[in-house]
Amino acid sequence: MEALSSHVSRTIVTRLVLPPDTNHMGTIFGGTVLSYIDEIAAISAMKHSRKVVVTASIDTVNFLSSAVVGDILTLEACVVSTGRTSMEVFVKVKSEDLESGTKTLTTTSILTMVAKDKDGKPTQVPGVIPQTLEEERLLKTAQQRKQHRLEMRNQ
Amino acid sequence: MEALSSHVSRTIVTRLVLPPDTNHMGTIFGGTVLSYIDEIAAISAMKHSRKVVVTASIDTVNFLSSAVVGDILTLEACVVSTGRTSMEVFVKVKSEDLESGTKTLTTTSILTMVAKDKDGKPTQVPGVIPQTLEEERLLKTAQQRKQHRLEMRNQ
Amino acid sequence: MEALSSHVSRTIVTRLVLPPDTNHMGTIFGGTVLSYIDEIAAISAMKHSRKVVVTASIDTVNFLSSAVVGDILTLEACVVSTGRTSMEVFVKVKSEDLESGTKTLTTTSILTMVAKDKDGKPTQVPGVIPQTLEEERLLKTAQQRKQHRLEMRNQ
Amino acid sequence: MEALSSHVSRTIVTRLVLPPDTNHMGTIFGGTVLSYIDEIAAISAMKHSRKVVVTASIDTVNFLSSAVVGDILTLEACVVSTGRTSMEVFVKVKSEDLESGTKTLTTTSILTMVAKDKDGKPTQVPGVIPQTLEEERLLKTAQQRKQHRLEMRNQ
Amino acid sequence: MEALSSHVSRTIVTRLVLPPDTNHMGTIFGGTVLSYIDEIAAISAMKHSRKVVVTASIDTVNFLSSAVVGDILTLEACVVSTGRTSMEVFVKVKSEDLESGTKTLTTTSILTMVAKDKDGKPTQVPGVIPQTLEEERLLKTAQQRKQHRLEMRNQ
Amino acid sequence: MEALSSHVSRTIVTRLVLPPDTNHMGTIFGGTVLSYIDEIAAISAMKHSRKVVVTASIDTVNFLSSAVVGDILTLEACVVSTGRTSMEVFVKVKSEDLESGTKTLTTTSILTMVAKDKDGKPTQVPGVIPQTLEEERLLKTAQQRKQHRLEMRNQ
Repeated sequence: MEALSSHVSRTIVTRLVLPPDTNHMGTIFGGTVLSYIDEIAAISAMKHSRKVVVTASIDTVNFLSSAVVGDILTLEACVVSTGRTSMEVFVKVKSEDLESGTKTLTTTSILTMVAKDKDGKPTQVPGVIPQTLEEERLLKTAQQRKQHRLEMRNQ
Repeated sequence: MEALSSHVSRTIVTRLVLPPDTNHMGTIFGGTVLSYIDEIAAISAMKHSRKVVVTASIDTVNFLSSAVVGDILTLEACVVSTGRTSMEVFVKVKSEDLESGTKTLTTTSILTMVAKDKDGKPTQVPGVIPQTLEEERLLKTAQQRKQHRLEMRNQ
Repeated sequence: MEALSSHVSRTIVTRLVLPPDTNHMGTIFGGTVLSYIDEIAAISAMKHSRKVVVTASIDTVNFLSSAVVGDILTLEACVVSTGRTSMEVFVKVKSEDLESGTKTLTTTSILTMVAKDKDGKPTQVPGVIPQTLEEERLLKTAQQRKQHRLEMRNQ
Repeated sequence: MEALSSHVSRTIVTRLVLPPDTNHMGTIFGGTVLSYIDEIAAISAMKHSRKVVVTASIDTVNFLSSAVVGDILTLEACVVSTGRTSMEVFVKVKSEDLESGTKTLTTTSILTMVAKDKDGKPTQVPGVIPQTLEEERLLKTAQQRKQHRLEMRNQ
Repeated sequence: MEALSSHVSRTIVTRLVLPPDTNHMGTIFGGTVLSYIDEIAAISAMKHSRKVVVTASIDTVNFLSSAVVGDILTLEACVVSTGRTSMEVFVKVKSEDLESGTKTLTTTSILTMVAKDKDGKPTQVPGVIPQTLEEERLLKTAQQRKQHRLEMRNQ
Repeated sequence: MEALSSHVSRTIVTRLVLPPDTNHMGTIFGGTVLSYIDEIAAISAMKHSRKVVVTASIDTVNFLSSAVVGDILTLEACVVSTGRTSMEVFVKVKSEDLESGTKTLTTTSILTMVAKDKDGKPTQVPGVIPQTLEEERLLKTAQQRKQHRLEMRNQ
């Protein structure tokens, strides 16, 4: 199986923050952002593996700022590291104020997705070739994150 | 402000896994589970603080097993530690097979919620008094998790 | 088939009243409450019978008070009487004002659910053993409600 | 305030039964039907009163048959009796098999809706003039149903 | 195959404009109206053909006025012309102001639906007999619209 | 007001075709595609004008092929011509088969969006500078499409 460029899995999603996605104060629910993050990560991992995928874990997520009704959310994702049957997907979420056009980093997140064959068994995925310095750095630190996930699981 | 028993914020949510919540293989989306987790954490923190709340962060989440169409999901949440304006909420998700009644731990998760006053400014919350050994342990390790979140943010 | 304690089917659901669930005046739609009631009744009857269930009827429902955006809804359900293939489920809905924590009874409701086997045929269910005085009273008056439903159907 | 013909409030809604509205066996959820019933009753009462309305109660509902994925649901509603600020709305639901075109009565239901002014206070509504024998009969038996609702409320 | 009266496919849908269907200014999304139009056109074509149908094209749609939160939308549809396996459905959308009862034409639209058999292959449909002058005119101009669609496709 | 490059409004949205978006045969509803098209067109026009926008019209849409459950939909949009207060947005929709990665053009569509100020009045928008040959061609033919829309409106 030949390794694929991270461009293969690069995925962009743009969404409007609408009233039903927000609380009393017009602030978007964390859960809405998380479900957008999970959806784009699944699409990105599906493009890389050409298989159905399931979410195995999601790393610490900090909501650095919070989007409000009327903002434009832009999500960008690509696969940054791979195991035998798993893929780590890096997702960046920015919110954009309609009037000023100012973009603010809302959150970054790393999810691990597992590819499944038709019987629902984990199945092999190609490796990934990073295309940016940020992706290269994330590939190098993949082992460290795996370690942290195992520790959290054992707790 | 007097500290409150964790019983005050204890919240239970039961949900059916329905076809629109699942992928081709009838497996629930990680994002759906995450949005249920965020909703129960918000309710739990609202009961503790009697304020509107927003999600500040979510800790590493491992999906230990995955629920399928027809399963019953049970989520349980309570506040386990507090800062001046923030609350850590511990959420446990179990899935239950309809026929056998077997319950499986699907995931555990810790979210940090911040209480907001009417102008959207962070506002003070009461402390929490743990009621189980598990909650006591989580109160003791709160500082450690805070440290980890800061590290992740700085990366 | 051995009768089961009503604890087996006891189910709790907590929900936030969100903007899309409400009309112009921020008051929750009756239909939203009814669909939450039907969902918890189905889960409760599924826990009792370990079968797929369908709703056969719903008794007179009075909306005693109406929840508004930002309220916390708590639903509690359990099986209170059984026929050969049917179960009566009692559902209580309370709404809780966020700021004051005051809980108000929004409605009580009784639904009849029928258990179905894999071919969609009605299938036998265990009896129920009430655990509270309220449940005991509801078991005693089950025959009376059945009578009323038949009358309504014949009209 | 002049009484209005029941034609003023006559409302028709046609819906497709789609996969997300159904359980494992492709049978529509009772709660979905109930929420369609509540929506059409609200529209019907709004047409009659020209006010925002809320649901006060719903009478015993029997699900005489159950619609499946791909069926066409037809709901028909009109106001059949009125109090000073309340309206009784009669709703008939039929499901239609796509291939054969056979229509089956799924349920009939009577809801009480209350008109509200801009401050959320109950406000006066016009009387109703029945246009069919069925509506005439329902107008005559309105008092009886009111009696039954009060009894149920007191229980 | 005998031609059918346009009454066979006549379909009415009434909907409330709710907060989640609208943007910041309380104006309904074009996309929401379009998805209501597609749904009623599908039901209308299903009633005419007694088959599952898919949308093949939608003609130029002008939004003549825009509905706001609290308006009642009324959609009316019927088949106005047919090909061997396709049906043209004419849809009229009116919005009604709650307080005044004034109805405004929001849009008119013509969609082409294709009937499919169980293997997903296009399948023959009956002809249509118009019942109003408007429908007669639309039947006469069907060929012209077909021409325009082909031109647009070739561009 | 200085004209803007079409890059300013270029918007990409990627979506998974999920079971609730599809009919009995697993084929996506035309209405679902249309509502995705309307959403991306709104975002694109908002980026160009930095104003809230409403849909004024949508041109003839041909569904050239139809996406099925599990496909990845990719929508791409940008402003291609402008009036004083209106913007024409060109939207291309492709569906991608998961296993083979084959992309098929599902539809192309042109929508006219109008910018609104805070009082809901139409407000001026910048011109647009095309960046591709396709966009240049669409800018040249804008007048022709306007003519066609007026004709359709007058019919």
